[in-house]
Amino acid sequence: MATARSRPRSTRNGDEVSELDKRIIEHLQQDGRRPFTQIAAELGVSEAAVRARTNRLVERGIIQIVGVTDPLKLGFQQMAMVGIRCERDRLLSVAEAVSAFPEVDYVVITAGTYDVLIEVVCADNSALLDFLAERLRAIDGVRETATFVYLRMVKQTYQWGTR
Amino acid sequence: MATARSRPRSTRNGDEVSELDKRIIEHLQQDGRRPFTQIAAELGVSEAAVRARTNRLVERGIIQIVGVTDPLKLGFQQMAMVGIRCERDRLLSVAEAVSAFPEVDYVVITAGTYDVLIEVVCADNSALLDFLAERLRAIDGVRETATFVYLRMVKQTYQWGTR
Amino acid sequence: MATARSRPRSTRNGDEVSELDKRIIEHLQQDGRRPFTQIAAELGVSEAAVRARTNRLVERGIIQIVGVTDPLKLGFQQMAMVGIRCERDRLLSVAEAVSAFPEVDYVVITAGTYDVLIEVVCADNSALLDFLAERLRAIDGVRETATFVYLRMVKQTYQWGTR
Amino acid sequence: MATARSRPRSTRNGDEVSELDKRIIEHLQQDGRRPFTQIAAELGVSEAAVRARTNRLVERGIIQIVGVTDPLKLGFQQMAMVGIRCERDRLLSVAEAVSAFPEVDYVVITAGTYDVLIEVVCADNSALLDFLAERLRAIDGVRETATFVYLRMVKQTYQWGTR
Amino acid sequence: MATARSRPRSTRNGDEVSELDKRIIEHLQQDGRRPFTQIAAELGVSEAAVRARTNRLVERGIIQIVGVTDPLKLGFQQMAMVGIRCERDRLLSVAEAVSAFPEVDYVVITAGTYDVLIEVVCADNSALLDFLAERLRAIDGVRETATFVYLRMVKQTYQWGTR
Amino acid sequence: MATARSRPRSTRNGDEVSELDKRIIEHLQQDGRRPFTQIAAELGVSEAAVRARTNRLVERGIIQIVGVTDPLKLGFQQMAMVGIRCERDRLLSVAEAVSAFPEVDYVVITAGTYDVLIEVVCADNSALLDFLAERLRAIDGVRETATFVYLRMVKQTYQWGTR
Amino acid sequence: MATARSRPRSTRNGDEVSELDKRIIEHLQQDGRRPFTQIAAELGVSEAAVRARTNRLVERGIIQIVGVTDPLKLGFQQMAMVGIRCERDRLLSVAEAVSAFPEVDYVVITAGTYDVLIEVVCADNSALLDFLAERLRAIDGVRETATFVYLRMVKQTYQWGTR
Amino acid sequence: MATARSRPRSTRNGDEVSELDKRIIEHLQQDGRRPFTQIAAELGVSEAAVRARTNRLVERGIIQIVGVTDPLKLGFQQMAMVGIRCERDRLLSVAEAVSAFPEVDYVVITAGTYDVLIEVVCADNSALLDFLAERLRAIDGVRETATFVYLRMVKQTYQWGTR
Repeated sequence: MATARSRPRSTRNGDEVSELDKRIIEHLQQDGRRPFTQIAAELGVSEAAVRARTNRLVERGIIQIVGVTDPLKLGFQQMAMVGIRCERDRLLSVAEAVSAFPEVDYVVITAGTYDVLIEVVCADNSALLDFLAERLRAIDGVRETATFVYLRMVKQTYQWGTR
Repeated sequence: MATARSRPRSTRNGDEVSELDKRIIEHLQQDGRRPFTQIAAELGVSEAAVRARTNRLVERGIIQIVGVTDPLKLGFQQMAMVGIRCERDRLLSVAEAVSAFPEVDYVVITAGTYDVLIEVVCADNSALLDFLAERLRAIDGVRETATFVYLRMVKQTYQWGTR
Repeated sequence: MATARSRPRSTRNGDEVSELDKRIIEHLQQDGRRPFTQIAAELGVSEAAVRARTNRLVERGIIQIVGVTDPLKLGFQQMAMVGIRCERDRLLSVAEAVSAFPEVDYVVITAGTYDVLIEVVCADNSALLDFLAERLRAIDGVRETATFVYLRMVKQTYQWGTR
Repeated sequence: MATARSRPRSTRNGDEVSELDKRIIEHLQQDGRRPFTQIAAELGVSEAAVRARTNRLVERGIIQIVGVTDPLKLGFQQMAMVGIRCERDRLLSVAEAVSAFPEVDYVVITAGTYDVLIEVVCADNSALLDFLAERLRAIDGVRETATFVYLRMVKQTYQWGTR
Repeated sequence: MATARSRPRSTRNGDEVSELDKRIIEHLQQDGRRPFTQIAAELGVSEAAVRARTNRLVERGIIQIVGVTDPLKLGFQQMAMVGIRCERDRLLSVAEAVSAFPEVDYVVITAGTYDVLIEVVCADNSALLDFLAERLRAIDGVRETATFVYLRMVKQTYQWGTR
Repeated sequence: MATARSRPRSTRNGDEVSELDKRIIEHLQQDGRRPFTQIAAELGVSEAAVRARTNRLVERGIIQIVGVTDPLKLGFQQMAMVGIRCERDRLLSVAEAVSAFPEVDYVVITAGTYDVLIEVVCADNSALLDFLAERLRAIDGVRETATFVYLRMVKQTYQWGTR
Repeated sequence: MATARSRPRSTRNGDEVSELDKRIIEHLQQDGRRPFTQIAAELGVSEAAVRARTNRLVERGIIQIVGVTDPLKLGFQQMAMVGIRCERDRLLSVAEAVSAFPEVDYVVITAGTYDVLIEVVCADNSALLDFLAERLRAIDGVRETATFVYLRMVKQTYQWGTR
Repeated sequence: MATARSRPRSTRNGDEVSELDKRIIEHLQQDGRRPFTQIAAELGVSEAAVRARTNRLVERGIIQIVGVTDPLKLGFQQMAMVGIRCERDRLLSVAEAVSAFPEVDYVVITAGTYDVLIEVVCADNSALLDFLAERLRAIDGVRETATFVYLRMVKQTYQWGTR
């Protein structure tokens, strides 16, 4: 008597992104401020169409057009990935709580040796220790943390997946 | 007889980002396509100043303005963090090689139990296995990999660090 | 003063399976619906003997004749082995509790780094997370889990052991 | 420039199993030798339909109808799960090679700390050591093995997933 | 203000075993029932001297003369080393408690990843599971156990250290 | 087509030790030099019977009667358990080679995270390092070692298993 | 809305050590009792200047001039690094508490698999066990410890970093 | 046939440090430049005696009187403990090689999960990566490294062990 929960989902959102949508996405992945007139000209459609579809992609949460900064160049000297193991029944609430911290810019729940992986951006080792000891580990349900300090960022890209 | 390598760097780039730069960055972190006229009005400076400073921030690599997509909504069902341990003297070359793969969107060198952490975006388990077995582990110098499959992405933000 | 518990068991059931039983088992391992007349002819005994011995093997729990399905072909996209570490004195009760879940088709208690290994069959990553976070880890006595997501099933056989 | 490899698959086989197919599967999961006439009567269809659909399910590899034995009752006293780590570029060939051993009844490739998980069924510790030392570890490309000896099998079921 | 506890011990018992003692020990390590007359003859001392010194060595706990059995030949099929991690402040009490079990023939406290290592001798896997689940893990203060099942004993000697 | 190797052994030696043998073993486990006349009197059999059966138990390797010394009391200050991981196909040869060292008094092959566990008895840390660096790790086929230094021996007994 | 805590520090103390300070430090790293007159002569400045600057460096905590002893030569036979994992919210208090023990001469908080690393100096294994079992693990908030016993100290230097 | 190597050492240097030596050491542990006249007065002996004994303690390597600096206050922002696992037979040569690096101020060989532990002092993350990737891992015989970045130094003392 398997419950509804364990049945495969019968629909799939991925297919609903059209080929034209994907071409627009590619342009915006390269330059988020590329004028719609230029994209329209290259794709052979009207500017209105590009604008409308872009707005729709943003509304549907398929794309965000944002300024992404390099922490090191803004004076943040210490970034780290932190693996978190949670108390038995606190996995989701820990993920929720840690997402509320401004120094945490990335939170995923994973299958593996850690329950949750987060990326944290700090000014220096002292700020990282403050974060770990007084903020992260103050969250009820955190059981164990392992910190992987970044020594060098080699690649961070936003251009994949549409072709 | 410490070498030059081991001496502290005497300069620091972070301080060179002005307060006005930071205010502009904040606007672009919220909406990468916000018109310069609107930003200029809110900050009480000329549009030309906002445009010039934005261009300068992009040129200096402090900010990228890009379209960031949600892989799951584009039909990519399997993302993973992969921890890589490298052969003794192949750390940098492995990081370089793995950065060349289009399914890898993030590569950092870390201090901890893994030498390199990468994020990989795949269509499904079959594509993930292809990536691991035939592409990642075909790189000379890769010694051991551990894969953390993403079950849910909880937070991914681009708004931090200027205040 | 060793207790009765620590003494070797003096009987052993394995020897009670006759050579004829083993030949019948081999036929049924190859095809669970093979007609008894065909098995009887090949083994040179009466159909009644094959039927009676098969019934007896099933009653003694030595063999089950069942339809075994391929989860992937039924739309279940995510299977995993989960290693469980239990609270000190909850090993048997955890094994019992986890056996009651319909998405869990295999539960063994092991000597090694995990106390219990289970196989779980889910529709997708979202269902797997639901299982892990809201069902498995809701069991009192579960202390830690490690999840090994299946990327490919290479062999699953039911034909061994009688020769 | 993502390759074809990294694109999501656009079709899905799971949906192609009809509701009638699923009802037949449920009957066979309970008793692999249940007469087609009985199944037909309970589902309100002809025996020919049940037979034809069953044959088709077997041909498509969706179901196998087999005799599944209990190793302990056949005198096999030692079963184990073995986690294998492979040399960098030998993952698939190791999985292939280990599948050829008759004492190995289960082989999966996993994402996690092991590359391959296998289940092995042996007569006793001496046979298990022979298997590990002289057979498994004789396979070129095996780098490291960890063995989890079974102390008790708690659940092994074949009834799930159709409802 | 270092306490007395942290000061080096100023005496050492090892030196108090004479050369003659050591020669007698060597004889008894080879055969615990070797007649004192024979040992006396070979060492060129009186039987009374050998007897007196042997008694003294036994009284001082330097040697035990015992019958050591081979568990496998007495029908005990399953031996294991078990690594135990204890609750913070229960290390010594756990070591004490586990020493009271008759199936445990060896208990040491170690520096490393385990707090206590024990050797356990059981009739079979079922007895080993009983021991682990119902006896060892019923001890208050046991936090985690890892079991290393013996596949083959290669060396067990009692002849070392006097030369 | 399972090979002979994977079949259960049909005989078992444990049962061949008689009740009288077990009573004699118990006496010798308590005191290896207890006179046969005393044992005979307590068990109500002739001295010749006790002597003959003891000799037979020793010949069959079921019991050794030996002097077992306490290393610490002989001036050996550093004992350790060492876990060894071997190269893929060198498991048995490593176990063989390490058994030849006089400072190693115990060698078992195990299923778990280590391939071989050994106990080593050294005079001090310097001798232990010599053993590890220059003797153990000089053995071809040793891949990795982990050393658990003994802090205290809590139990070492030879009295179990006959009742 | 990042808090003040997460902002990069705008000042840096390191640069405030003058070149002359560094030359004086080098002399004192080689010999802590070198007469100020000798240092002054070699650096071509007045003795008063060397004395004043040295006092200032000591007051600012940049240098300590101390007698550093070799534990082994003082009869301390057992040193160890101990990795400590703390309860979620007790990291700082554990580091504080462990610093109060006289046998602990080094305490650092680290990012990695351990929260705190300490170096401990003991007379022998018995004292080390006392320390671990009765002192370190009596600290509230200590969750797990791993002990790395020193076998040989190869380098301990105080001469680096000024050139 | 145990070799000379495995015999306990019969002498011990620790006892040769007199009570007066220990009192002098205590003074120098508190202040390495404390005038001998002051120490002499407090201990009630002549200045010549204090001077002679101090010189003798330094010559015997029992004490070094040195200036010990705080790396952070000299602008070194990144310190780390690095655990090294070596190739089977390269343990001693790796320890030797790594001791030659000026950024490494501490090298010990340990029993445990790492073969060698080193402390390294670097200007920043970039220098630490250079050290790890291009210097440490260029040493032949290094097999694996794990880096524990220091977040805060809590205690570093030189005053212990004489009372």
